[in-house]
Formats: sequence, C-alpha cells, structure tokens
Amino acid sequence: MQRKRVAVIGAGPSGLAQLRAFEAAAEKGTEIPEIVCFEKQADWGGLWNYTWRTGLDEHGEPCHGSMYRYLWSNAPKECLEFADYTFDEHFGRSIGSYPPRAVLWDYIKGRVEKADVRKWVRFNSPVRMVTYADSTKKFTVTVHDHVADKTYSEEFDFVVVAIGHYSVPYMPHFDGIEQFNGRVLHAHDFRDAVEFAGKDILVIGGADSAEDVTSQCYKYGAKSITISYRSRPFGHHWPDSIQEVPLLQTIRNKTCSFKDGTIKEVDAIIMCTGYIHHYPFLPDELRLTSANILWPPGLYKGVVWQRNPRLFYLGAQNQYFTFNMFDAQAWFVRDVILGRKAIPFSEVEMEADGGFWRTQQELLTTDEDAIRFQGDYVKALMAETDYPSFDVDTVCEAWYEWRQHKRDDIMTFRDHVYKSAMTGKMSTQHHTRWLEALDDSLESYLRETE
Amino acid sequence: MQRKRVAVIGAGPSGLAQLRAFEAAAEKGTEIPEIVCFEKQADWGGLWNYTWRTGLDEHGEPCHGSMYRYLWSNAPKECLEFADYTFDEHFGRSIGSYPPRAVLWDYIKGRVEKADVRKWVRFNSPVRMVTYADSTKKFTVTVHDHVADKTYSEEFDFVVVAIGHYSVPYMPHFDGIEQFNGRVLHAHDFRDAVEFAGKDILVIGGADSAEDVTSQCYKYGAKSITISYRSRPFGHHWPDSIQEVPLLQTIRNKTCSFKDGTIKEVDAIIMCTGYIHHYPFLPDELRLTSANILWPPGLYKGVVWQRNPRLFYLGAQNQYFTFNMFDAQAWFVRDVILGRKAIPFSEVEMEADGGFWRTQQELLTTDEDAIRFQGDYVKALMAETDYPSFDVDTVCEAWYEWRQHKRDDIMTFRDHVYKSAMTGKMSTQHHTRWLEALDDSLESYLRETE
Repeated sequence: MQRKRVAVIGAGPSGLAQLRAFEAAAEKGTEIPEIVCFEKQADWGGLWNYTWRTGLDEHGEPCHGSMYRYLWSNAPKECLEFADYTFDEHFGRSIGSYPPRAVLWDYIKGRVEKADVRKWVRFNSPVRMVTYADSTKKFTVTVHDHVADKTYSEEFDFVVVAIGHYSVPYMPHFDGIEQFNGRVLHAHDFRDAVEFAGKDILVIGGADSAEDVTSQCYKYGAKSITISYRSRPFGHHWPDSIQEVPLLQTIRNKTCSFKDGTIKEVDAIIMCTGYIHHYPFLPDELRLTSANILWPPGLYKGVVWQRNPRLFYLGAQNQYFTFNMFDAQAWFVRDVILGRKAIPFSEVEMEADGGFWRTQQELLTTDEDAIRFQGDYVKALMAETDYPSFDVDTVCEAWYEWRQHKRDDIMTFRDHVYKSAMTGKMSTQHHTRWLEALDDSLESYLRETE
Repeated sequence: MQRKRVAVIGAGPSGLAQLRAFEAAAEKGTEIPEIVCFEKQADWGGLWNYTWRTGLDEHGEPCHGSMYRYLWSNAPKECLEFADYTFDEHFGRSIGSYPPRAVLWDYIKGRVEKADVRKWVRFNSPVRMVTYADSTKKFTVTVHDHVADKTYSEEFDFVVVAIGHYSVPYMPHFDGIEQFNGRVLHAHDFRDAVEFAGKDILVIGGADSAEDVTSQCYKYGAKSITISYRSRPFGHHWPDSIQEVPLLQTIRNKTCSFKDGTIKEVDAIIMCTGYIHHYPFLPDELRLTSANILWPPGLYKGVVWQRNPRLFYLGAQNQYFTFNMFDAQAWFVRDVILGRKAIPFSEVEMEADGGFWRTQQELLTTDEDAIRFQGDYVKALMAETDYPSFDVDTVCEAWYEWRQHKRDDIMTFRDHVYKSAMTGKMSTQHHTRWLEALDDSLESYLRETE
C-alpha cells in the first residue's frame, strides 16, 4: 500500500508543532506518512520570523509578518512553554518571563532543529489552491515555488491548515480618512516605534495590539498617544501623555474628532483593529469562516473540519494559550491521521460533540473565564494523546497573575517572574526593567548582567 | 450552438477597452459572445480608482492602487486620448494637457458609462485560479465573490488578462534596512506627500515614479530630497533642496551612505524601484514572465498568448502609449475572438512574426526611439481593425515635445499645451501653474478660472 501523504500549510508555531508531533511518533518507532510542509516565507517561525517589509513581500505575496521591532512577549513565557522542550533546556539556564521576539524565535527554532524536520519544509512556496476530489478521496494542492518560479500540483491524503489568523488586517473606514494628511497604517504594518518619536499618535483599538503599540510608542518617545476605543477603555494608569477617548468620528486634514467631543490633531493613525481569517487558497466547502473567538464553528475538537475530516485547522481559535495548545492540537491531529484516534462517523455527531464548548463559550464574561475555558480545552485534548502531560492549572495561575500585574501597572508588568508548569521553577529576574531595556536583541537579553 | 463566453480579468483602462471593443461591435449589429469582467475592487478604473488603503484591502486582497493624492498626469493627455471618445466630447470644452487623477478617472468612466457596459462587470471579485482543459478547450475560472463571501467556478472559451503590471512592487534589500529608524515604503504605498513636509526624504530609483514622487514631495514641502540612482541621474535642473547621488550602500539607524561617499541622515526611504509582473492565478503554461519591456516574450502581436491563443494579455508592455494602445489591442483581440481575424496556425509561426519587433527592440537607445517603436506598434495594430484611425505621428510629436519640456524644466513641464491628434486642436492653458495648484480635485480643475 502506498504511503499516505500529508500537506502542512505553514511553518509557523502551529505548523511546526505538527511536524514535531509526527517526528515524535517516528522517534518511537511508528511508521509515519510522508509530510510536506509548504511555507510562504524564506525561513520558518511564522510571525516570529521578523520582516522589515510591509504590504507585499519580495515575491509579491502578502507579508505574513505582523511583528515589530522591540516587541517583547506580552504574556509570560511560562504560559506558552512546550511540554517536551523547556526554556531551561533550550537556553541551558533560567531566563526572564517576558523575552523579546528574537529570543522566542530562537526557542521555537531550537526544538525543530533538534527534531531535524527542516527537510520536510519547502520554503518560498505559497499555496495557491487546494481542491478535494470525492472520487479519489485526495486533495490537490497547487503551489508556486518562487525560487524556481514554477507552479505545480501534488496530491495529498490529508491537509493541515496552519497559517494562523493574525496576518491579514481588518481596517475599518472612518469619515474623512481619504484626506488625512499623515500616515495611516494597521498594526500589521507597524515596524519601528522610533519613527513616531516626538509625534502625536492616534491608536484605534481596544485589544492586545492597541495596548502594546501604545506602550511601545510611549517607550520610544512619542509626544502623545490618544487611544480610541469602540466599547470600553483599558482603564490602565497610563502615563500623562496617553489618554483614552471613545470612537473616532471624523477626520479633517490632521484633526480627529471623537464621540465625546474631544478634538485632537495627530501625525499618524495606527489601526489596531484586528485581523481576519483569510484562506484565499480554499474553496467554500473547505474554508473556515469565523470571527476571532475561542470556539470557531465547524471544527470537531477545535481542529477537525467537520464537513471533510481529512482537513484540519490548527490554532484557528482566539488565543490565550499558544505554543503548547498548538502542540496538544497537533498531537491529536497526528493521531487521527495515524488512525489511532477514531472520530465520529458523521458531521452531525461531531457537531453535537462541540455542544458543551459552545454553551460554555456563551457564558464567559471575564478574561479569567476565557483563560479557564481554553485551559480546559487544552486539558481535554492532552488527555487524548501521548503529548507530555503538564499541569494546566499552574499555567492558568500564571495567566491570572499576569492579568493582575497588567492591572497594577501596564508599564511594569513585564518585570515580574512566574513559575514554570514544566520545571516547577520560578523564572529569573531579567537584568533590566522592560521600560529601560531599549535594546531587544537576543545577545543583549541573554547577557548575564546589564 | 451555444454562445461563446469571454472572461475579462480586470476593469481598469485595459479591461474596459476590451468591454468597449465588444460593445462597439454589438452597436454595429455584430453578435458578440457573453462577456464577464471580474474586478477585484469595488469600482472600475483600475489604478485611476484611488484608494487610501495600502498593503491589503478591506477583503484582505493586495491593494491594486499605486496612485497617490495630488497626482497629475505625467504625460500630455493628448498622448492617451481615446480615438472614439475625445476629451472635448467628455468635458464639453477644452481643458489643459496634464489633468489630475480625478479628471482622468472621470474621462475613463465617461466612455464606458456611455457604452453601458457596467452590467458585464462583477465587482469585489478577485480571480483565484484559471486552468485550461485540452479535452474541452475551455478555461475554468475560479472566483471569490467578497460580497456574498462565496467562491465559485465558471467555464469560458476565452480569457483576457487585463490586470496591468504596476501594482505589485519590486523592493530590493539594502544593507542595514532592517534597522532603519524611520519609514520604509514603496511608491506603491505612497499616498499623501503632506506626511513628508519638513522631512528629509530618500527616494531610490531612476524612472517615472522616482521623478514624480520627488516633484510631489518638493511641491508639498519636504525639507530635502535625496535621489539615489543605480545607473544614471535624471540630470534635471532640480531645486536646491534636491540632490542626486549614486546607489545607496548601507543604512545605520537613520544614516544612509552612498557609493560616492555621500552620507545623509533621512526620515523616510521611498523606494521607486518598479513593479513586477505577477499573475498568482495562472499556472505556468498560461503565465507570462516578463520584465518591464516594450516587447514581452511569447505574445503574438503583443497580445495573443502563443502557447494557447485562446488567452490574451492587454497592456503587458512597458508603456508610453496607454489608453489608445489598449484600445488598439482590445479591438484586435475582439476580432480574433469573433473569428474575423485569422492568426497563424502554429506557435512557431507566431513567434516568427514577432522577429521584426524583437530585432528593433534591441536597437532602441533613446526615449524618442522607444516612443517611435511603440507608435509603430499601435499603427500596425490599428491597421488590422475598425478602431477609429488616428494620426499616430501627431501623438509622437506630442511625446517628443513632452520629453523636451521635461528636460527644459521638470517643475514647469506640466504648464505646456499640446495638439490633439483626434480633434486637431491645441489644448487650453490651465488656470493655475502646476507648482502652485495644491488642490487637485476635479471641481477645482474644471473651474474656468482660479
């Protein structure tokens, strides 16, 4: 019998989790399918692979990268640690809890380099189209190889969509924006906060991006930052140069008017207005349509595409948990593909199985509720596979502390340390307070002292 | 027999020329195929349909628009006038020779509104994939309808690719650009020159975009503009705040070093480094690969895809002639589709037919040579169809004058007037000199006096 073939689309944290999951099985002597991972970028790491480019990349493809210079993790690393590869193992010692981007990228790469799965990845290879034929029970994946500048199609038995959903910006229109005499950009295209030093900035949004872009711009010398929210302010004890106002109403030249009558002249408008799920290579019958929620519709166990259970989505959820949740998902998907894990026969049964989660989702009101919900999901998934079990409750504790530390002081929460659920140890205090640490390089971060 | 079906991809100047060509035939009583035009944007006009957005659009698709606020035609309108719809007919009177974008957009729209072809266009509809089946001799076109958020496929007998090739930026890497402490953008994402008032700007490039973005930034108050060229400077008598230097070598924070030893601190880097031909919806056997040249390879008469003569490309050339050349092409393509025009039986014969043009192309040295070459091409095409004939030599004369006027003074060339080949009349002097005309609206332009 011919060896089965699995296409993994994307070599970011979720796609790499899938590669590692298969490799872990192979390590234990399991015969695994042929894995081909298609990655649009020239290197792996997904969002963590920083690019200076914005808009379209060197091959004319939409830039995947949404990260910016000087970005530090906005959650404790203890909340995203791999159960099978700890931070201590990677760095050979204990480090702080909120490492900058380059340090986290290094960590992600460390595991898959050790697992030696780079040979499975085809880089510079955006997927153009995926179709499924009922007659053959196979997917046809059409790819553009930008190095050879060739398109080609191959057949696969399974497809894992692991492209993430924080790469395609949602950008609303505001009255008069066509005539704004400054720069309008989405957080997706934000790169270097120094560009905004000495400037009056308007940040639009009420979630993580708005919070972090504001902190960044403050840290690197913006003159003033006005945050415009739709539903409610963050309510942090912001420094004096930062103010929160309700939604932007009109723009005239550089003058912005807000719902409460505030009027402010600004030099740039940074929209931190979220991202959309965008799968331009999938036809309707395979394509997830979802808002950024904790339980996207149509996915059995949050990963199996119910309309065609040979197709899987990793990390399609709104995310508190990230890397280790992707792992729990990837191990589960692997076991379904390996035939170790039976899934319900019908779409109706799979849909019914999600009833509990859908009901629970409706009842969530606080961040803490949402964290617990997602922690329960990770527990449920982990119970189904041989992914190294870890104490999810300890991770949830770190999440609750993080939430409180942010409430206490948004400019110092990154100076705290947390306990690893994997090693049981507290992390080490970093040598420099976040607000004073202007150099975000890996070298600077890993230096033992300032 | 079933009515043939033609897919036109793109409703910009070239796609609209194709619609108008078919409608002109229908007007004369010819039975025409069913025409379906797929347009990614919400309105027609292609590049002339301005958008404030950059990067990705409201549906997550790459923004088509490369135009910016305050853009005025950089060539005399007499060089792009439609032979079947003059400027005088559209505006009811004579206007100046270098109208701003909104005025030209109005003119393009005027003809197709009169022709009543909007009903053939499906807006918000990016084409995802085109395949061809030898067995049926039909193309399958897969489309995403963003209004209904549905994908679907339809079959066509002919496909006309009319998406242009000035929408997907080419952006080279320079040493240290990852660490530049300012804004890096391509001309494709340049929108409002006022953003750069009072700033030190670096423009990289040696062609039309670099020239025009520089003039714009000067006009709207940039403090200094440094133009970095690869092969040779423009050599214009630039104002004092503009200097030309050879190629950029390194960037350190905000400091740029050039090949001649010049060192300059800049706030923004605008790359006017050109565009790439990018057809992500076409497999290799249908996909044109070409640099921005006057005679792209593989296209019989510059339009028929030799490997499969049911596929056509409009405006794939580097362009001096634009709207009226697209017309000459569209009328020819129409006649091939209608079966009025025989094309050689084999790919080899078609290739041989282009020998003259390929040889000529090699001999071009000056702008004037290139203009004459393209003028000859337009003449040759026009001789084959019933497109209203016009005196191409008169248009070439306007081109030569334009070239000289630019050499005389890059900041005043737009104050000149030229003779229309269509009406034989000189255009009218505009009420305001270009350098003083800060308001580029249609209303302001069409006012009889300042």
